Amino acid sequence: MSDAPEHLVRSYDIQLKRLRDMLTEMGGMVESQLAMAAEAIMNRDNDAAARAVEEDPKVDALEHEVEQFVIQLLALRQPMAEDLRRIVGALKITSDLERIGDYAANVAKRSVVLAQYNLPYSFAGLAHMASLVQEQLKSIVDAVGTSDTAKAVEVWRSDRVVDDIYNALFRELITYMMEDPRNITPCIHLLFIAKNLERIGDHATNIAETIYYAVEGEVIPDVRPKGDTSAYANIRPKE
Amino acid sequence: MSDAPEHLVRSYDIQLKRLRDMLTEMGGMVESQLAMAAEAIMNRDNDAAARAVEEDPKVDALEHEVEQFVIQLLALRQPMAEDLRRIVGALKITSDLERIGDYAANVAKRSVVLAQYNLPYSFAGLAHMASLVQEQLKSIVDAVGTSDTAKAVEVWRSDRVVDDIYNALFRELITYMMEDPRNITPCIHLLFIAKNLERIGDHATNIAETIYYAVEGEVIPDVRPKGDTSAYANIRPKE
Repeated sequence: MSDAPEHLVRSYDIQLKRLRDMLTEMGGMVESQLAMAAEAIMNRDNDAAARAVEEDPKVDALEHEVEQFVIQLLALRQPMAEDLRRIVGALKITSDLERIGDYAANVAKRSVVLAQYNLPYSFAGLAHMASLVQEQLKSIVDAVGTSDTAKAVEVWRSDRVVDDIYNALFRELITYMMEDPRNITPCIHLLFIAKNLERIGDHATNIAETIYYAVEGEVIPDVRPKGDTSAYANIRPKE
Repeated sequence: MSDAPEHLVRSYDIQLKRLRDMLTEMGGMVESQLAMAAEAIMNRDNDAAARAVEEDPKVDALEHEVEQFVIQLLALRQPMAEDLRRIVGALKITSDLERIGDYAANVAKRSVVLAQYNLPYSFAGLAHMASLVQEQLKSIVDAVGTSDTAKAVEVWRSDRVVDDIYNALFRELITYMMEDPRNITPCIHLLFIAKNLERIGDHATNIAETIYYAVEGEVIPDVRPKGDTSAYANIRPKE
């Protein structure tokens, strides 16, 4: 764009900034969805659950808006190199954020069933997992706004802890189910809630990879942490 | 592109065709991953499971290749209107296909645990669901290759049936768990397998929406079918 008149360059910068602002706005929305969903579980707060679910169409609408804006930018600006990677990256980030919103809404829905049970165990593991994932999400939304690759890599690395808690929780919940069939339905919902949180963490790491690639033009030079191993878990009842 | 020399127009057509070919190749790969995963469950075939999992890095590599090619096309060709929508759509489709591959691999992994159990019930529901999702996937990969919007809308509509089977299966599996704690671990894996199949159906409908939008420039003029309602399911043991 170096040959373009200055006012065109300026309006281009404004458009790129607007794209980033749309993403951080969307990020803020899914952050608050997740906060409401966590609140709904921890405090049996059905109103918070309803609000988290109600946010979903707004998040979807914003995703559609970002997509439209990206297509417009590509058509009008014909961006190159880093700008092009950023604009294409925005498309990936908006899709990850939309999925995070879906998972948060699903957590909120399940909290409504959970609120009907007196659960015989504490939510300590789940609460820990939820707060870690909320931190991950906050950090990565910040990193989107500032193109902070160091922060992105930090989020990417931190996902390992979330996966470890998930794998432990998976086994723990199964043992509760085995102890008393009345625990089965609530524990199934807790399992899916934990899985949703784990997936939110995965999407945060996807966003980290996208930020890094947009800025550096190459992938994060490291092997991705191992992740959810619960697919191989085989827990049997005590004889 | 009407003012461009003919050989440039031709080479552009070739590149667009190559993009479509990459997507259908990727689609074929995840179709075969899903077929192997279904085989692994139904016939306790651990070799098929291993092959489905081994395909995953190849699918990931192809996704990366498609992304690179899209960025290159955007930079060199500066496409407009329908071409631009198709190229941006390819980016979304490759990401949906990659997720479908992940879900298929996860189904395959869980089949290895399942093979160690003598399950006291038939797989009829799950087999039905798997074959419907395989059909959906096949149809949508065909529709990607031919830009067939009518077929895309058909796949989009058919997802409702998959969701209904999933919701019924969810309840059925919970009752098996309640009957005998030895059923809990295998039924949890079956639940997640069913959920993975349901998600594959969702991604097939995403692809349908993308095809439609790329060709028509507008969203499918209909309300999306309702989907997974199991988040609200509350099943209690018989007294």
